[in-house]
Amino acid sequence: MLNLQFIREAHERIGTHVHRTPVVTSRTFDEAAGLRVFFKCENFQRAGAFKFRGATNKILSLTGDERRRGVVAFSSGNHAQAVALAAREAGVRAVIVMPTDAPRSKLAATRGYGAEVMFYDRQRDDRELVAREIAERDGRVVVPPYDDYFIMAGQGTCALELLEDVPDLDALLTPCGGGGLFAGASTVAKAFNPKLRCFPVESELSDDTRQSFVKGARVCIAPPPTIADGMRTQSPGALTFPVLRENAEDVLTVSEGQIVETMRFLLFRMKILVEPTGAVAAAAALHGKLPAGIERVGVVLSGGNVDADVLSSIMEEKL
Amino acid sequence: MLNLQFIREAHERIGTHVHRTPVVTSRTFDEAAGLRVFFKCENFQRAGAFKFRGATNKILSLTGDERRRGVVAFSSGNHAQAVALAAREAGVRAVIVMPTDAPRSKLAATRGYGAEVMFYDRQRDDRELVAREIAERDGRVVVPPYDDYFIMAGQGTCALELLEDVPDLDALLTPCGGGGLFAGASTVAKAFNPKLRCFPVESELSDDTRQSFVKGARVCIAPPPTIADGMRTQSPGALTFPVLRENAEDVLTVSEGQIVETMRFLLFRMKILVEPTGAVAAAAALHGKLPAGIERVGVVLSGGNVDADVLSSIMEEKL
Repeated sequence: MLNLQFIREAHERIGTHVHRTPVVTSRTFDEAAGLRVFFKCENFQRAGAFKFRGATNKILSLTGDERRRGVVAFSSGNHAQAVALAAREAGVRAVIVMPTDAPRSKLAATRGYGAEVMFYDRQRDDRELVAREIAERDGRVVVPPYDDYFIMAGQGTCALELLEDVPDLDALLTPCGGGGLFAGASTVAKAFNPKLRCFPVESELSDDTRQSFVKGARVCIAPPPTIADGMRTQSPGALTFPVLRENAEDVLTVSEGQIVETMRFLLFRMKILVEPTGAVAAAAALHGKLPAGIERVGVVLSGGNVDADVLSSIMEEKL
Repeated sequence: MLNLQFIREAHERIGTHVHRTPVVTSRTFDEAAGLRVFFKCENFQRAGAFKFRGATNKILSLTGDERRRGVVAFSSGNHAQAVALAAREAGVRAVIVMPTDAPRSKLAATRGYGAEVMFYDRQRDDRELVAREIAERDGRVVVPPYDDYFIMAGQGTCALELLEDVPDLDALLTPCGGGGLFAGASTVAKAFNPKLRCFPVESELSDDTRQSFVKGARVCIAPPPTIADGMRTQSPGALTFPVLRENAEDVLTVSEGQIVETMRFLLFRMKILVEPTGAVAAAAALHGKLPAGIERVGVVLSGGNVDADVLSSIMEEKL
C-alpha cells in the first residue's frame, strides 16, 4: 500500500497546504563532513516540522462523516502541533492528548492552533489508551504519529521534493523515531533509484530501531533519556518496521554530544535552528558515520522546534 | 557615481563569488506585523553577512599592481571576515586591524580565512589611523567598511536580487550603521521605482543617522552602547550620508528590547539565526514603526554572526 503512486497522491492532496521547503547546501558543512550534502529543511515547514505533511494527508483523506466527528492524537511534541494546525485548516475539531509535563511552548502552540488539549499522567496512564478511549467515546478518528500508511505517505512527500530538486543522490539520511519519515522517504528514494542507499539515524541512547534491525524483529527498550525528544519512542512501528527492513542498508547512531555539536554547527555556521531530533541525520553525516563510496547525500533536517531553555543549555554546552 | 548601472556592474563582477541569498516569507511574521514582508536573508551570505558583497566588489576592482600589494581593513566585526574571505578568494593578502578586545569567534574566523590580524587598543588608538599607517608603509589599499562607492555598490546588489525576485514592493527597510548598505540598496530601489519608500533603521541608542537626517548635516555621537554591534558607528559616512538624505523618507529607530524580541521571533518562529544588527530592520516592521499606506515590505536581514554567549543572554532575556 505504501508506494510511489500513493505518495504522489499524498503530495497532490497536501500541495496547497504545506510549504515546499528549500534544499540548502553549505560549503563549510561539506568541507567538515567530506561529503556533498543537500539539506531538506523541514525545520521551515509549517508548525516547525515534517509532521505537518503526514497529519495533513491523513486529515484530508477522511470522509465527510469522519471530519464532522473530529480527530484525536497523542503527542507531547511536533505531531501535536501538526495535527492541531492540519485540523484547523480542514475545519475539523481536534483533541490532543498531552502529558501533564509537556513543555509550555508546545502546549501553548497546540492550543494556539485551536485544538482542545487533554492531559494524561506520564507515570500512570497509557497515552495511546487514553486517546483510543476518547476516540471511542466521541467517534473521533485517531491520527497516529507514525504507524499509518497515510501518515507515512505524507512524510514521504519531503523526499519527493528533495529528489525532484536533486535527482542524483548516492544516499538519503533521515532521523528515525517511530519510523514514519524514514518509511515514506525511503519508499520514494528506492522507487526513484533502487541503488540509492537509505539510512535511518538514531541517537545511541534510543537505538530501538538499530536493535530491531540487527535482530530482525521489533525490540522494545526502556524509555530513552536522549536529548532528541522526538526519538523517545521505545520501539519501531508495526507498519513502519517492515518497510524499514526492506529499504535500510543499515541503521546509524550518533552520540548526544554529536547531536549537540551538530545543532551548534547548523546554528552558528549555517544560521538555521534545528531541534535535537532534527539534527540527528546531519550529525551522522558530519561525524563520518557513513560507509565508503558515498559522496552526494540528502539529509532531512526534520524539525526546528526548540524551547528557549533547551537552546540555552546547548549554547552553554552544559548537556 | 553610485547609480544602477554601477551596481549592476558590481553584481556582474561578484556574481560567481557571492551567494544569491533566498528571499523568505512567514505567515506568522506577517500576521504579527500586519504587513506582507519579504526577507532578504543576508545572514545566509558567505562569511555570514552582506559585507562580503562590498568587500568582494572592492577587491575585484583593484588593478593587478594593487592586488599584489595587498589590502588592509579595520573592523571588529563582519567587515573583517568579509575582507579576509574576499581577499583569499582573489589571491590577495589582507591585514585586518582589530581591537584587542574583539570577540574570540570573530578573531578566529578572520584568521581562519587566512588574514593577518594586527591589534589596536580601543581606548588609546584611532583604528582608522592605524590602518592608514599600515597602508602607507606597505603600499596596501584600504578597504573601508562603508564610505566607498565600490563598497556601497557591492552592498546594493542584495537589493538588486530582492527586487528581481519581488518587484512590487511598497517599501524597503535596511539596518543602518555607517550607511553603506542603505546607500546601495536605496539607489537600486529608487532606480527600479521612484515611489518605492526607503527607510534606514537604527537602534535608538545609536541614532547618529536619525539625528543627522533631522539636522540635515552629519552629527557625531558618543560611542553607543547598543547590543547591535554593527551599529556602533558614531556618525554616518561622508559619502553615504548625501545618498541617504536623497533616498530616505525617514530614519526609523527601535529599542534594544524590540531588537531582542525580534531576534527571538526570527529564531524560534522562523528558525533562522539573525544577529542583533541584522534584526533591526525586521524589528521596525514587527513593531509598527512604518507610516501608513505600506503593505508589501522588503526587509534586509543583514547578518547572522552571533557569539554563543550573546545568544545565550538573549535566550535568557537577561539583556
